[in-house]
Amino acid sequence: MRIDINADVGESFGAYKMGEDEKLFPFITSANIACGFHAGDFNVMQDTVQKAAKQGIAIGAHPGYPDLQGFGRRNLSMAPREVYHAVVYQIGALHMFCKINGVPVSHVKPHGALYNTAAIDVEIAEAIAEAVYDTVPEAYLFGLCNSEIIRAGEKIGLKTAGEAFADRRYDISGRLCSRTLPNAVLHTTEAIEQQVLSIVLDGKVQTIGGGTIPLKADTICFHGDGSEVAKRAELIRAALQSNHVIIQAIGEHR
Amino acid sequence: MRIDINADVGESFGAYKMGEDEKLFPFITSANIACGFHAGDFNVMQDTVQKAAKQGIAIGAHPGYPDLQGFGRRNLSMAPREVYHAVVYQIGALHMFCKINGVPVSHVKPHGALYNTAAIDVEIAEAIAEAVYDTVPEAYLFGLCNSEIIRAGEKIGLKTAGEAFADRRYDISGRLCSRTLPNAVLHTTEAIEQQVLSIVLDGKVQTIGGGTIPLKADTICFHGDGSEVAKRAELIRAALQSNHVIIQAIGEHR
Amino acid sequence: MRIDINADVGESFGAYKMGEDEKLFPFITSANIACGFHAGDFNVMQDTVQKAAKQGIAIGAHPGYPDLQGFGRRNLSMAPREVYHAVVYQIGALHMFCKINGVPVSHVKPHGALYNTAAIDVEIAEAIAEAVYDTVPEAYLFGLCNSEIIRAGEKIGLKTAGEAFADRRYDISGRLCSRTLPNAVLHTTEAIEQQVLSIVLDGKVQTIGGGTIPLKADTICFHGDGSEVAKRAELIRAALQSNHVIIQAIGEHR
Amino acid sequence: MRIDINADVGESFGAYKMGEDEKLFPFITSANIACGFHAGDFNVMQDTVQKAAKQGIAIGAHPGYPDLQGFGRRNLSMAPREVYHAVVYQIGALHMFCKINGVPVSHVKPHGALYNTAAIDVEIAEAIAEAVYDTVPEAYLFGLCNSEIIRAGEKIGLKTAGEAFADRRYDISGRLCSRTLPNAVLHTTEAIEQQVLSIVLDGKVQTIGGGTIPLKADTICFHGDGSEVAKRAELIRAALQSNHVIIQAIGEHR
Repeated sequence: MRIDINADVGESFGAYKMGEDEKLFPFITSANIACGFHAGDFNVMQDTVQKAAKQGIAIGAHPGYPDLQGFGRRNLSMAPREVYHAVVYQIGALHMFCKINGVPVSHVKPHGALYNTAAIDVEIAEAIAEAVYDTVPEAYLFGLCNSEIIRAGEKIGLKTAGEAFADRRYDISGRLCSRTLPNAVLHTTEAIEQQVLSIVLDGKVQTIGGGTIPLKADTICFHGDGSEVAKRAELIRAALQSNHVIIQAIGEHR
Repeated sequence: MRIDINADVGESFGAYKMGEDEKLFPFITSANIACGFHAGDFNVMQDTVQKAAKQGIAIGAHPGYPDLQGFGRRNLSMAPREVYHAVVYQIGALHMFCKINGVPVSHVKPHGALYNTAAIDVEIAEAIAEAVYDTVPEAYLFGLCNSEIIRAGEKIGLKTAGEAFADRRYDISGRLCSRTLPNAVLHTTEAIEQQVLSIVLDGKVQTIGGGTIPLKADTICFHGDGSEVAKRAELIRAALQSNHVIIQAIGEHR
Repeated sequence: MRIDINADVGESFGAYKMGEDEKLFPFITSANIACGFHAGDFNVMQDTVQKAAKQGIAIGAHPGYPDLQGFGRRNLSMAPREVYHAVVYQIGALHMFCKINGVPVSHVKPHGALYNTAAIDVEIAEAIAEAVYDTVPEAYLFGLCNSEIIRAGEKIGLKTAGEAFADRRYDISGRLCSRTLPNAVLHTTEAIEQQVLSIVLDGKVQTIGGGTIPLKADTICFHGDGSEVAKRAELIRAALQSNHVIIQAIGEHR
Repeated sequence: MRIDINADVGESFGAYKMGEDEKLFPFITSANIACGFHAGDFNVMQDTVQKAAKQGIAIGAHPGYPDLQGFGRRNLSMAPREVYHAVVYQIGALHMFCKINGVPVSHVKPHGALYNTAAIDVEIAEAIAEAVYDTVPEAYLFGLCNSEIIRAGEKIGLKTAGEAFADRRYDISGRLCSRTLPNAVLHTTEAIEQQVLSIVLDGKVQTIGGGTIPLKADTICFHGDGSEVAKRAELIRAALQSNHVIIQAIGEHR
C-alpha cells in the first residue's frame, strides 16, 4: 500500500512569510509550489524549488487565480480560455525554475477557488487539463477525488491523482465542506490521524453528517501554513508506516 | 548584407490596447513579446505568440521590471539576484506560450529601464545573461550595441545581437539620449530612414551633437506603439532592400 | 423636464490610454472617475478631476473590484464587509483629489461587475450604500433603475439617481442584457437617440424581446471609450434639447 | 520633557500577517498606518485604524512606493509630481478610514525607500510636504531629523516632527546606516534603551563610527515587526518614565 503526501508551499511573498516550508519538507513527498498569482514570487519560487529539490521531493505547479489579496480563495469569473492561458503562464514560470534546478514538473494542482471550481465546472476543469497536457504532458494532474478535474484529466490522457485532505471535513456527496462552516476543519492530531488512516487503509471517510462514504485517494494534502503541521505530519507518517503504508511521490508508485 | 528588424509587441493588458502589432508584423523579423511584468498578460501573450508565429517571425522574451503602472520605464532598485529570478520567471512564462505554439524562444531583450540599466551596470547585465544562459542557452541576447549586456552575454557564451534604434538619437559615447531630452526621438520618416541606412550600410550614426560615431548593429528596433510605424517600417524596409540589404531574423544570418 | 448625462472617465492607467475623456466632457454633466482598482491611477485621477472640475462637471467616485486585468468586469466573490472597505478606500482616494481641486464628491457609481452585483445582491448593495453614507453622505448614489442598490441607498437615507443606459438593451425585467449576448449593445446613433428620448420623454424603453417596459431614469450613461461617442453625445444632447429637456447634473435638479 | 513614540503598523496584507500590532499598541503614542501601496489593504486599514483609535493612539498615514513585493524598500524612480499624486491618494484613503472611525489624520510619515529619498532629495521632499499641506494641513509631517523632508515641511508651513530610531545606527552626518551594513541595527534591549535615553535626555547619539553627534528628536520609532518589540517597548518606556520623560503623541506636546 502506497500513498503520496503533498503540501502547498512557497506561499511567501516579498517580505511576507507564510508557512514553515522547511519544517514540513522532511514529511512530504510532493510539493505544490505557488506560481506568483495567488501567492509566491520569483524569489520565493527559486528558493522553494531549490530546497524541495535538494530533499528529493517531487515538485508541482500550484496555479491559482490572479488575486494576491484574496490568496486565490475568492472566486473570479474568468472564462475557460483565460484560465487555460493563466495556467499555461504559471506552469511555464515554475517549469523554468525546475529547469534551472535540474528537476521536472512532476504534477500540477490548482489552488483554492480555482481548485474548487475545477472540481465542479466541466469547462474550467477541461481548460486546466488542456493547459497541463499542452505544457507538461508527463505530469500528474492533482485534484479532488472523483471530481470534474480528475475526469477532465483522464479524458485528455493525463495521469491523475485524486486528492484527499487530512484535516478538512467532507459532505455526503464527497465535496469539501466550506471553510466558513463550523467544524469544517479538523483541529486535533487524533482526528486528523484517524481520517488519514481511514482514507488510506480503508478507502473511506466519515462525513460531517456522521455517515461514511468511499474515498479512494492517491495523495493526501497536509496544510503547510499551520504552526504545528510539521509535528503533526511526523506523527501521521509514523502511524501510516506502522500500518505498512509506503509513503512516496505518486510518480514512484507502481 | 543582412539586418534583423525587431519590435516590442504584445504590450496590451486586459482591456487596454497598446500598439498595432498586426500592422507591424509584415515588416519585422523579430518580435519582442512582453511577459506580464511591465506590460502584457497571459491572454495577450498567447494571442501575440500565435499571430507572430503564424507569420514566421522569430519570437523573443521581453522581460521588464514588475511595474505595470510605469510600463517598466522607471528604475527599480532590484538586487542582481532578484533580477536573475525575475528574468527566469518571465522567460519561463513566454517559453511555455512558445511551446504550445510550436516555436522556440529565439531571443531575449530586456525592456525599458531594465534595458538601460543592463547597458551600464555589470552586475545587472551578468544577472540577465546568466538567466538567459540557464533557461534558453540557444537564444540570442539582444541589447544596446557595445554595452555591458552584450559583453556579459559574450562572456557567458551566449550568441548576442547588438541593437540600434531607428528613431532614437545617440550621444557621443554611443548611449541613447534620454527620452526626456528635446530631439531625443526622430520624428520624420526621412530622418529615421537616413539613420537606419547609415547604421546598416556604413556602420555609423550621427550623434545628437552633430558628430559621427561608429555603430555596428545586428538588429534595428522599430517602435511598435506609434500610429504610423507600419507605414514607416514599410518605407524603410524598401530603402534597405533597394540597397541590397537582406532583412531576416538574426538566427538566420550566416 | 431635466436629465443628467454621466460617463465613466479617468479609465487610463499608466502608459495605457482608455477613452477620449476630453472630447466627451463638453457633453456630460456628471463624470464617474475610476479610483485605481479596476482602472485609473493616482496620476490619471488628478488629471481627470482637474479637467472635469474646470468644465463644471459634477464629479463622482466610480469604485470597482480590485481587478485591473479584468477591468472590473469579472465577478470577484468579496464578502460584503470587504466591499464596504474597498468602497470606503476608493471614495477616500477620490475625495482627496476633489479636495485639492476644490470640488465635492457629488456622486458615487459602482463599476462593472460590482455595479451588476449591487443591482441584484441586497447585502452587497447595502455594503456600498453604507460606505457612501459613512463617507460622503451628501452625495448621490447612482445605480441601475429600480434595483437593489437604489433601494439600499433610499433605505439608509441617501439621495439616489436611477441610471439608464443610452446604448445597452434591457430585458423584460428591466435588467441589462449581458454584453456577451448578440444585440446587447446598440450601435447606431439613431437607435441610441431613440432609446434615450423614449426613456427621458416617455419614461419607458423597448426591451430586447420587443416589448416595452416603464423606465424612469434620473441620469443617462454614455460610454466614454467608444471612438464616436463624442459626436454621438452631441447629437443626442441636441435631440433632447430640441424636446425642451434641460440637461444638468442631478444635484442641480429641483 | 516629552517624547512621542511611533511605530509602523497595519502592514499585513490579505492572508499575510506582518507584525504584532496589538501587542505594540499599549506602548506607542503614534501609529503610522500603511495605505495599501507598499503594505496594508482596505480590510487591514479599517481594522488597524479602529483598534488604534480605541486605544487613543494618534493615527498617521504611512505612504510608500507602489511596490508590495519590495515592501516599499526598493527605490523607484518616480517623478516628484507622481510622488505628490501617490501621497495624496494614500492620505485620502487613510483619511476616510479615520473619518468613519471619528478620528483625525494626526501625522504623515513616508515609508521605507520613499522615507530615505525624502530625507535627501529636495524635490521629492517638497512634493511630499505639498501633498500633506494640500490634504491634511493640520497634520504633523514626520521625517528623519535634520533632513530635507523636515526642511520642506517647515518651508511650506507644516508642523514637523524629527524622528530618531530606537534600534538603527547613525553615521557621522546623521544619516541612517543602510540595513545592508553589519551592525546597522541594534539588537539588544540594553543598547536600544541606551540610545533612546541618550537621544531623549541628552539630545545626542553615538554614531556607528564611535563618535557622538547631536540629535534632537520629537518622536522615536519602534519597529513593529520584531517578535520581542512589545516587551522591549515596555522596558524602554519604563526607563524613560523613570527619567521623568512624559510619553505622549506629538500633537499633545506643549
